[in-house]
Amino acid sequence: MQYFSEDLSVETVNARMGANVTPRMAEVMSALVKHLHAFAKEIHLTQAEWETGIEFLTKTGQICSGERQEFILLSDVLGFSMLVDAINNRRPAGATENTVFGPFHVEDAPIRAKGDNISLDGKGDPCLFEGKVIDLHGNPVAGACVDVWSDNADGFYDVQQPGIQPKWNNRGRFITGADGAYAFRGIKPTSYPIPDDGPVGKMLAQLGRHPYRPAHMHFLVTAPGFQRLVTHTFVGDDFYLESDAVFGVKQTLIAPFERLDGADTLWRSPFDFVLTPA
Amino acid sequence: MQYFSEDLSVETVNARMGANVTPRMAEVMSALVKHLHAFAKEIHLTQAEWETGIEFLTKTGQICSGERQEFILLSDVLGFSMLVDAINNRRPAGATENTVFGPFHVEDAPIRAKGDNISLDGKGDPCLFEGKVIDLHGNPVAGACVDVWSDNADGFYDVQQPGIQPKWNNRGRFITGADGAYAFRGIKPTSYPIPDDGPVGKMLAQLGRHPYRPAHMHFLVTAPGFQRLVTHTFVGDDFYLESDAVFGVKQTLIAPFERLDGADTLWRSPFDFVLTPA
Ligand SMILES: [Fe+2]
Ligand SMILES: [Fe+2]
Repeated sequence: MQYFSEDLSVETVNARMGANVTPRMAEVMSALVKHLHAFAKEIHLTQAEWETGIEFLTKTGQICSGERQEFILLSDVLGFSMLVDAINNRRPAGATENTVFGPFHVEDAPIRAKGDNISLDGKGDPCLFEGKVIDLHGNPVAGACVDVWSDNADGFYDVQQPGIQPKWNNRGRFITGADGAYAFRGIKPTSYPIPDDGPVGKMLAQLGRHPYRPAHMHFLVTAPGFQRLVTHTFVGDDFYLESDAVFGVKQTLIAPFERLDGADTLWRSPFDFVLTPA
Repeated sequence: MQYFSEDLSVETVNARMGANVTPRMAEVMSALVKHLHAFAKEIHLTQAEWETGIEFLTKTGQICSGERQEFILLSDVLGFSMLVDAINNRRPAGATENTVFGPFHVEDAPIRAKGDNISLDGKGDPCLFEGKVIDLHGNPVAGACVDVWSDNADGFYDVQQPGIQPKWNNRGRFITGADGAYAFRGIKPTSYPIPDDGPVGKMLAQLGRHPYRPAHMHFLVTAPGFQRLVTHTFVGDDFYLESDAVFGVKQTLIAPFERLDGADTLWRSPFDFVLTPA
């Protein structure tokens, strides 16, 4: 039996765990205690800073609602969401990389025909997105579901503006045929700020950081026998490309956005998705 | 410029800090990012576990109210509160050690005369608490304020039972005279559970831990020229002495509780407080 001491704080706390704790719970919690204590010890956390931290976490929890998840935002801006995503989605060379899912996906978007336009509010620069879903050997993946979503020209997802944007604005699902090809019309996405009127926004300001994400199109690509691919394509000339507030950008996900001269399509963004076997 | 990668996750996030961040903010936050990421990497945190964590933190924030602080409770049961207390209150040998303040102190308790009884509800085993406030050389400290509080025989502080317990039940402030002595009557405290009907209580259960604190009397001893002493004395034969849910026990804070045969005082707990110069 060991009473508490600064030196043996981790050992004392972790020795308290019961005998019937699941091995994974024991592993996760003892690592959490170890790293939390190491943090406080390394920086000699003051009592006042601890109080600031308690207050911050409390406010972060209390601003959460059905429409807002401030703890995910906190995880995002600390690069923690991207880290967890990276750890759990290590892929072979050549496979399309994952990035954060984000809070704006909606299940069961309408299944649309190849080439359909998902921009329903008539705002923004029209853009044709097209490419193939292929495997690591370049073979087309037929029957893949390409679920896409983006903000509108004002920087808001439809779910952020119910009653203002048409339902399913800038969303849709497309199923690939035998050639693995997908194509749809939408708009060239715009950069937008993550919600910055809460505790996380205040923290970003104190860190001298802006809340913007570079413009991106979300993709969720699924096909039987392959790993689920959650990713974005990024608009390569975006002002915030090198300072994404949530660290979502990867070099391989920066897509071409080529200006066209067509009548109703001003931009074209070709991108192939390379799936990894499950 | 470095896009996100698992290997360089810490460096990438911390490089984003602005130039005008205060040195301490930069130090605290970069250490936090480093240790948080090390935690996720060490245990290969899964996406589902991350979601469990987000949900846990959200619920912990949402149960907080004016009367309840679940994040402090979380800090307490992870030994984090005791660690911060220890880091910030290193004392020379012979000085009375600090322990956690706890959530039940009330400012401006009545100042009472030496020997007064603070137990106003007539419940519990009467106990005489007495001793001296002295400096490191054993000299009495005159004019020290000994602010004390405990639960009642049912295990509740008065503020937890407004309308049931008399106001200021088991609370009071005593000022030492020229001899540094203090004395008051109260009750032999009883062990009690920390609130365990919320997320932290559920976590404790998953860790195979009980929510009890061993019986203790709270002391806040202040005197001009000396460090503020926040401590408890613990009842030495308490069932939970070696498993305090918040790790507050230190060997030197275990006090004698001697059974007496007096008419109205069944117990006596002598304890001297040795203050450290400011
Ligand atoms: Fe997005
Ligand atoms: Fe207490």
